[in-house]
Amino acid sequence: MALLSVLTPVLALVLCLVIGFLLLRSKNTETTSRAPGQTKGASKTDFRPWVDQDLQDDTEITARGGDEDEWVDGNEEEDLAHVPYSPPRYPEETMLQRSKEFYTLMNQRRSVRFISPEPVPRGVIDNIVLTAGTAPSGAHTEPWTFVVVSEPETKHQIRLIVEKEEEVNYRQRMGDKWVSDLARLRTNWIKEYLDVAPYLILIFKQTCGILPNGKKKTHYYNEISVSISCGMLLAALQNAGLVTVTTTPLNCGPQLRLLLKRPVNEKLLMLLPVGYPAADATVPDLKRKHLDDIMVHI
Amino acid sequence: MALLSVLTPVLALVLCLVIGFLLLRSKNTETTSRAPGQTKGASKTDFRPWVDQDLQDDTEITARGGDEDEWVDGNEEEDLAHVPYSPPRYPEETMLQRSKEFYTLMNQRRSVRFISPEPVPRGVIDNIVLTAGTAPSGAHTEPWTFVVVSEPETKHQIRLIVEKEEEVNYRQRMGDKWVSDLARLRTNWIKEYLDVAPYLILIFKQTCGILPNGKKKTHYYNEISVSISCGMLLAALQNAGLVTVTTTPLNCGPQLRLLLKRPVNEKLLMLLPVGYPAADATVPDLKRKHLDDIMVHI
Repeated sequence: MALLSVLTPVLALVLCLVIGFLLLRSKNTETTSRAPGQTKGASKTDFRPWVDQDLQDDTEITARGGDEDEWVDGNEEEDLAHVPYSPPRYPEETMLQRSKEFYTLMNQRRSVRFISPEPVPRGVIDNIVLTAGTAPSGAHTEPWTFVVVSEPETKHQIRLIVEKEEEVNYRQRMGDKWVSDLARLRTNWIKEYLDVAPYLILIFKQTCGILPNGKKKTHYYNEISVSISCGMLLAALQNAGLVTVTTTPLNCGPQLRLLLKRPVNEKLLMLLPVGYPAADATVPDLKRKHLDDIMVHI
Repeated sequence: MALLSVLTPVLALVLCLVIGFLLLRSKNTETTSRAPGQTKGASKTDFRPWVDQDLQDDTEITARGGDEDEWVDGNEEEDLAHVPYSPPRYPEETMLQRSKEFYTLMNQRRSVRFISPEPVPRGVIDNIVLTAGTAPSGAHTEPWTFVVVSEPETKHQIRLIVEKEEEVNYRQRMGDKWVSDLARLRTNWIKEYLDVAPYLILIFKQTCGILPNGKKKTHYYNEISVSISCGMLLAALQNAGLVTVTTTPLNCGPQLRLLLKRPVNEKLLMLLPVGYPAADATVPDLKRKHLDDIMVHI
């Protein structure tokens, strides 16, 4: 009993230490247990089908300033002079004729996976990239870089990176539904055209720019801007009699960016193999929606 | 002393209870403290500058299946026949000529805010929308709806909605930086062209489709697809001698969708006022980047 009474303070001390330890521990768990919560929240965005981790749009987080709706053809100058603008104007009949002919030409465009290795004049590619560069962009940031690859070894390196990731996509990441959709269309992860096509055009979006003073300059709407620019590039390819297939390589962005030595503010958006169609090229026999199915007039 | 020794078991019991309580508490904090982490992660996406809450891409969260990189020209048919494809092919000189002429034409395009009220033949607008409809889309979902508004009262309702939100954007939501960027360019929230332009083209992206059996069908890459389609539409407008200014109305999406009676799976992406340029139209005197600034050749 005496022994016990002597031990009491010791017992109390020990228990106090235990409590203190537990208090500390519970504090730590509060902080650490937040981490998984955050990554969980963040990883939601990893599921975006048209944008992989690397393609994430930095402006999402940083540029609340982009909350403006108009794509000003502006730049950084203090006060920009305005000049008269009078583009060519055609008589109504000519307009109807031109718009019909342009539609007929564009309507012949198809995504082609069978590309001829025949060389294509470099000057044509230059004009096509210049045309893509005429697209509008948020605050006239022109947030695009077109990497044109014709060097065979680099093309092959690109193929290896894309096919490796593609196989993983098919085997692991893709939903059964999407896999079966593709199966119907006889596509797989073999991308022979990446070796064969005379040119690969890799389109990077610049999520931000670097000002002369080294400060970051937000590129508002950069992904939509670059996608619009890609639409004009596709029109220019079709106008020149060249073909491509629109691809957005998933999860290869970082590797391809390093391979092509692009800065970290540039994220891969599209990869277009470009050339003449192969002599035996085929395309799925599909139709486009009718005007009434895509247009509503009020 | 005896009292103390009697109290010892009680003391021990109390301390045990305290310890038990602390253990429980630390467990709870682990679970609860995850919640803020999640919401924190999720709310990030609300700040996307080029997409407001309404324009958020549903497929982001739902469609993991979209994890595929190739924009298959496919559809829902079980097995799609492949047919030979041989588009027009031009001699090299002709290609160079065509690509140069197309660039020259597109390079004359500018965003124009001063639009003439003169009527524009409806057939031209039809051809232009048809041209936009030839764009590629993820799994050939063609996830676009072009709402063409010429009815004056509806145009005015659109103007009221857009200007009201714009003023709020300017006054409250926008970062000072972006406001000053715009100030330099003399733009504000008055959008007279929404009344004046003979046509307003509102471009909706279909974040998903509805199958005959009523099931939802994911539209992979729908935002990029519709943006590319918009690029082809801008090219078609320029080809016809018409002008527009590319706008992505912020926070008006839901109101405009209701006004135009579009279904909930359609989200507004762009609003384009379309017409001839006003006789006294002016544009900011800005330049485009040179080829070397947008293209890298490897």
